Amino acid sequence: MNISANTLAQLEDRFRATLINSLPGLKSLHLVGTMSENGHSNLGLFNSVFHLGASPSLLGMVFRPGSQDHDTLSNIKRTGFYTLNNVLTSFYQQAHQTSARYPSGVSEFVECGLTEYFIPNFQAPFVAESTIKIGMELRELLPVALNNTTIIIGEIKHIQLNENILASDGYINHSLAGSLTVGGLDGYFENKPLERLSYAKPNQAVHLLKVKKEY
Amino acid sequence: MNISANTLAQLEDRFRATLINSLPGLKSLHLVGTMSENGHSNLGLFNSVFHLGASPSLLGMVFRPGSQDHDTLSNIKRTGFYTLNNVLTSFYQQAHQTSARYPSGVSEFVECGLTEYFIPNFQAPFVAESTIKIGMELRELLPVALNNTTIIIGEIKHIQLNENILASDGYINHSLAGSLTVGGLDGYFENKPLERLSYAKPNQAVHLLKVKKEY
Repeated sequence: MNISANTLAQLEDRFRATLINSLPGLKSLHLVGTMSENGHSNLGLFNSVFHLGASPSLLGMVFRPGSQDHDTLSNIKRTGFYTLNNVLTSFYQQAHQTSARYPSGVSEFVECGLTEYFIPNFQAPFVAESTIKIGMELRELLPVALNNTTIIIGEIKHIQLNENILASDGYINHSLAGSLTVGGLDGYFENKPLERLSYAKPNQAVHLLKVKKEY
Repeated sequence: MNISANTLAQLEDRFRATLINSLPGLKSLHLVGTMSENGHSNLGLFNSVFHLGASPSLLGMVFRPGSQDHDTLSNIKRTGFYTLNNVLTSFYQQAHQTSARYPSGVSEFVECGLTEYFIPNFQAPFVAESTIKIGMELRELLPVALNNTTIIIGEIKHIQLNENILASDGYINHSLAGSLTVGGLDGYFENKPLERLSYAKPNQAVHLLKVKKEY
């Protein structure tokens, strides 16, 4: 079937939102930890983190206008710090529950049964249960006039992980880490590794990549 | 282990690039089809497409400076149109091969054994082998001064898919579609569905989502 832009515009809002959210494929999934104005921890579930560059080490993230992302965004703007924590099968239902509209004064860590974890000299809470914890510092806000979203760009300040998920060439094994992905807003997926492939060159067949510590 | 920003800055460039590219989790994967100046088709592999909004239906995408993304970006700027095509297990090695640095005058469709597919009144080539084909029109270029990348924002003009992968509420089933994800630049993954979860509300346990046509 072909769905044109005209058809899209006529779809019921919620159907279109579900369709477009799930259309571009499975997305990475993060619990974002921030510190609220009155000193308690805040936790929100996001699927919009993307790689922007390795030197400096930058990640982007999209915030929608007037949504429940509001607490997280205002905390990031005020404090300048936030954490990204991967989501595992063992607690994905609790992670999903953090997307409920809790009052601003309530910590989603407590309500959803997840554990705060702090490191010295870093003001935002990590999720103890996550196997990959990333400490971020806000670098830039990019407003998108087309639909009033905001792209925030942050720099990686800390990476916490178990070295058994890190290959000898720097590659992080998300199978061993147990990281889930999400389709749309509510469909959760585990992953099943195929292969790592070698750097592609013209007129040379692709082969499997061999690294010293392989997966 | 903890990797700080100072440690990151001292890592060898390629190790850091592999680490940071693979860090934020598995990413959606697309073959991007464009039409070159001299009228032949161009195809490139990208892992940076992200959801920006459903009304209007917008997707973002990141281009690095001076990289092999160059042909794709200049074609998009000149023509205003491009396609996003999902990657399946049956042709992921061919998709990977499109990332080789072929000369500008060469079509990656031909070199890598993939099939062009056109629809009326749309100027960019789709990949016939893909189960989800998205026709895009360029809406905005956002330069990112921090690292000289460019975020392009496009609007969805056409969606081509088999209706058996579309649930009754608009959700697209990437398991049935066979869409792969990628870790870093070269690690390919199939997906394994867990569950769809209901809309989360405070003080109410998460339950499994039931839709008329369920997966």
